Amino acid sequence: MQALSLSPPLLTSPPRSLRSKSSNTFRAPRMDRHARISSQFPPLLHRDLALEVASLMESRLGSDLLPSSVPDNVRSFQNQSGTSFGSLDIRYGAPGSSVDFLLESWLHCKVPTGAIDITTLLVYQNDSTDAPHFNLEFIQAGPTSLVLLLDLIPRRDLSFCPDYIDTFYQDTNVDKPRQDLEKLPQAVPYRSPSLYIRSIWSPTAILVSINCGEGGATKMEEIIKGTVASAAKEVLGIWLERCFGTGTGTEMGEEEREYMIRRDRVVKSKSIEIDLSANLPRLFDPDVANRVIAEIQKACARLKSSMP
Amino acid sequence: MQALSLSPPLLTSPPRSLRSKSSNTFRAPRMDRHARISSQFPPLLHRDLALEVASLMESRLGSDLLPSSVPDNVRSFQNQSGTSFGSLDIRYGAPGSSVDFLLESWLHCKVPTGAIDITTLLVYQNDSTDAPHFNLEFIQAGPTSLVLLLDLIPRRDLSFCPDYIDTFYQDTNVDKPRQDLEKLPQAVPYRSPSLYIRSIWSPTAILVSINCGEGGATKMEEIIKGTVASAAKEVLGIWLERCFGTGTGTEMGEEEREYMIRRDRVVKSKSIEIDLSANLPRLFDPDVANRVIAEIQKACARLKSSMP
Repeated sequence: MQALSLSPPLLTSPPRSLRSKSSNTFRAPRMDRHARISSQFPPLLHRDLALEVASLMESRLGSDLLPSSVPDNVRSFQNQSGTSFGSLDIRYGAPGSSVDFLLESWLHCKVPTGAIDITTLLVYQNDSTDAPHFNLEFIQAGPTSLVLLLDLIPRRDLSFCPDYIDTFYQDTNVDKPRQDLEKLPQAVPYRSPSLYIRSIWSPTAILVSINCGEGGATKMEEIIKGTVASAAKEVLGIWLERCFGTGTGTEMGEEEREYMIRRDRVVKSKSIEIDLSANLPRLFDPDVANRVIAEIQKACARLKSSMP
Repeated sequence: MQALSLSPPLLTSPPRSLRSKSSNTFRAPRMDRHARISSQFPPLLHRDLALEVASLMESRLGSDLLPSSVPDNVRSFQNQSGTSFGSLDIRYGAPGSSVDFLLESWLHCKVPTGAIDITTLLVYQNDSTDAPHFNLEFIQAGPTSLVLLLDLIPRRDLSFCPDYIDTFYQDTNVDKPRQDLEKLPQAVPYRSPSLYIRSIWSPTAILVSINCGEGGATKMEEIIKGTVASAAKEVLGIWLERCFGTGTGTEMGEEEREYMIRRDRVVKSKSIEIDLSANLPRLFDPDVANRVIAEIQKACARLKSSMP
């Protein structure tokens, strides 16, 4: 496997409102990511949107992010037969940022029924705030079928913290894009087979499976460019405005903060165990899978070292 | 309003397995409830099932329940014009029981579009266990439309307690009846308009709206007698076998128990605030609504007195 050349240092302009952005501002990182991902992966319906969201996110986070932390053979990997390949990038938050790390992963895997493509964009926050994490995941199995998992993942026990719901989910009107998506006749709710994964989402989580049926590729493209793109940008905008940055959280005592740290740790480690540790070794050779999982585990465990 | 005569003391035979029950065992309370509810309320599609579940529950709980705690004018009430009427019963758990209280309510309310009938059967547990509460609610607006809310309401922060999910939701296979119901072409997921209420459910909660369309009353009857009845009895059976009784819970330290007590309190008071305090005064005269709400608030606040 040819190791890809690393990207030039990413734009580190000061954070600015998503709405006041000039598209030129983002050209450098966007073109870099575009070129890298497009050269490595086959064309995909959700590709352009995922690239756009990743670039918007990274540009807005700017100097809050340290450079990529992963080695070349994780930033680009494949199985022996070359039928499955992937890219994982992790960028830790800079000192003083509310970001713990940004994870971006692209997977293309041959499966008996064709191919499955999974794109994930995750921002975990650290304990300087209790504001939600950001999660965007596309799972595409063919040109007419897409699963979308889009949420501001809560960090408090919601049944116990009604104010938290008001602050991040009610007052932000983040349920609106969910309603729009679930109105699509092609969308049905998506349920994770894992009861644990079902339990981590917020009450406004967008968890839908969109199926356009045979010959529905054009319709799917229209839906992705329309309702799905609007939802992704809307939820990202809310996260950037209301969740990202120190001072965004609700008030917490020391005990509550410690509980949140322990809770975050369980959510991260269980999510990896259920999602990646169970699936990556089936899709890639064990040494590749282990190498990739190790990088994610390292990022998730990092908070531990700052604990007493 | 004619006050109904109170029922004779309910069956207090020792708890026995739901599956080994003899139907004769339940005759006394079932006939009493049947007669009382049937004389007060117009016929309803979900009526027979709700009566059956309530009788099964009450008979199985047997001596774990104290006699009814509510006055006659709460056990039976109506608005001035006699177009809306209801019945609320609350029975506290006996000393040594895991039951905090059993709440049973029947409402029939004229609304501009016709009538709405709401039947609720709730068992809240006390702090002798962390095993889930039981919740069954039917909301029927006409003969072809039914909302079903059926769940074992969790009492721990599920994202933080994967073992709790395994014990009460994974190992009991309680997701099966949910899957069966959601397979019905007439069923769509029901979302509470309240984000808080959405946050209290388990990952296996059955929250569906069943619509059989014009002329679909026969189909609705078939669904209620079939899939809905199976689901209600299955979930009740799991609750009775795995959640009811002391010694059913997972291990808890003193701190965890205290957290659970505080959490239970928030869930109960918020649920009442959102569900009843907001709606009953619109459906009944304020003095009637206040009287009914006061009885529920009294039951929900009761745990407070046992706190240090």
